[in-house]
Amino acid sequence: MTKSSAINAESAAPSVSALTGALTIRADTLSVVTAERVELTDVTDRVCDLVAASGVREGIVSLWSMHTTCAVFINEAQRALHADIKRLLETMVDRHADWMHNDPQHSDCDRVNADAHLRAMLLGHSLTLQVTAGEPVLGQWQRVLVAELDGPRSRTLRVQIMGIS
Amino acid sequence: MTKSSAINAESAAPSVSALTGALTIRADTLSVVTAERVELTDVTDRVCDLVAASGVREGIVSLWSMHTTCAVFINEAQRALHADIKRLLETMVDRHADWMHNDPQHSDCDRVNADAHLRAMLLGHSLTLQVTAGEPVLGQWQRVLVAELDGPRSRTLRVQIMGIS
Amino acid sequence: MTKSSAINAESAAPSVSALTGALTIRADTLSVVTAERVELTDVTDRVCDLVAASGVREGIVSLWSMHTTCAVFINEAQRALHADIKRLLETMVDRHADWMHNDPQHSDCDRVNADAHLRAMLLGHSLTLQVTAGEPVLGQWQRVLVAELDGPRSRTLRVQIMGIS
Repeated sequence: MTKSSAINAESAAPSVSALTGALTIRADTLSVVTAERVELTDVTDRVCDLVAASGVREGIVSLWSMHTTCAVFINEAQRALHADIKRLLETMVDRHADWMHNDPQHSDCDRVNADAHLRAMLLGHSLTLQVTAGEPVLGQWQRVLVAELDGPRSRTLRVQIMGIS
Repeated sequence: MTKSSAINAESAAPSVSALTGALTIRADTLSVVTAERVELTDVTDRVCDLVAASGVREGIVSLWSMHTTCAVFINEAQRALHADIKRLLETMVDRHADWMHNDPQHSDCDRVNADAHLRAMLLGHSLTLQVTAGEPVLGQWQRVLVAELDGPRSRTLRVQIMGIS
Repeated sequence: MTKSSAINAESAAPSVSALTGALTIRADTLSVVTAERVELTDVTDRVCDLVAASGVREGIVSLWSMHTTCAVFINEAQRALHADIKRLLETMVDRHADWMHNDPQHSDCDRVNADAHLRAMLLGHSLTLQVTAGEPVLGQWQRVLVAELDGPRSRTLRVQIMGIS
């Protein structure tokens, strides 16, 4: 799928790589169906599959949650740690505080989900990962986690891969 | 404005699109003049206008706050929720704690704005959004919000659009 | 090093620049050796050097921490403020709470570092900065800070520069 790429001969150091070519952009969507109100899902393997299918060898992959109350972030895939993450979110943002967003006098939202908005804001709605050799760059223990914060729902991430194929 | 782009005929699935072409990069700035110390401004429409004006159809748009005490993040544009966001920031980072940054013995900053630095750190100073069909990719309720945390001030965001035109 | 770039003559406003050309991608790594358990390191100058060495004049630079317990974020380089940042992290995420990740009954991790995972999640593991005129775009007081949260360790950031050279 390579068009006009070429290894840059100036790069001697082993940690350095350089490439020049045309830009390829491919976009996909990734769905996550959740069963709990607050739920973490590891989508790393699915992101890797989409990157591989794009044919892009060097570049970036952008992950974007299409929802205000669904976040995407990096951490380890361990059940005990995921329980700690949920506990921290509950401590930092009390679901049952008297948030204005949950008050019919001030808000037309009937989901009573202010905590979900606030928790997603702290985790973030997107990630931009590097791609090399056709794979996302991740550390040994790093996994891409989607945080459902107002489920159960069906959620969509937009996945865009940009780079040299 | 297209140079050498071409739809990738291999992409059969309806959610998939792929394009190859030359890279176009355009940069602009966006100003926000604030009236309060802590204030949220919805700049979504202005970002959309800049993306449209760039001629880039597929790619990314990077939003970068040029200030340590001004953040940019995603959430819903609702007055009640914005009040909740301000309240959460006040709870998580107490303005009147004895921060060293506010102590003339340790700091040459006379703005007494440690809270603004810490709150911006939690919200983040930048976003990288996807662009498709000449528009930023956003979910139904997602808006791009600028958080003034040490106003009133005049603030600048750098907006860079990169992709295939 | 320019291949086929050209200033877009349509752009009259002083804040606007536009360029079209081939895509160059270069990747490097950046090491940070830490001496404390929680430690902030300013890597701005080293990122600037890598961007300059890449030959990319307009584009983006992605910084990615290869570790779950090491974050990268933007703030001012001031010793007093860095003390405040550490204090806030300690307040928001109590190291000595009974986290499940630290409990041998639930976790095979012997580092007892749940707090480091949770603190990194709040700061974020990556940044995507804009590049213009061969330099990262940063505000007057903005510095790129690496947060060691479970040191002392040797840490690696992957630095990828993408754009028009």
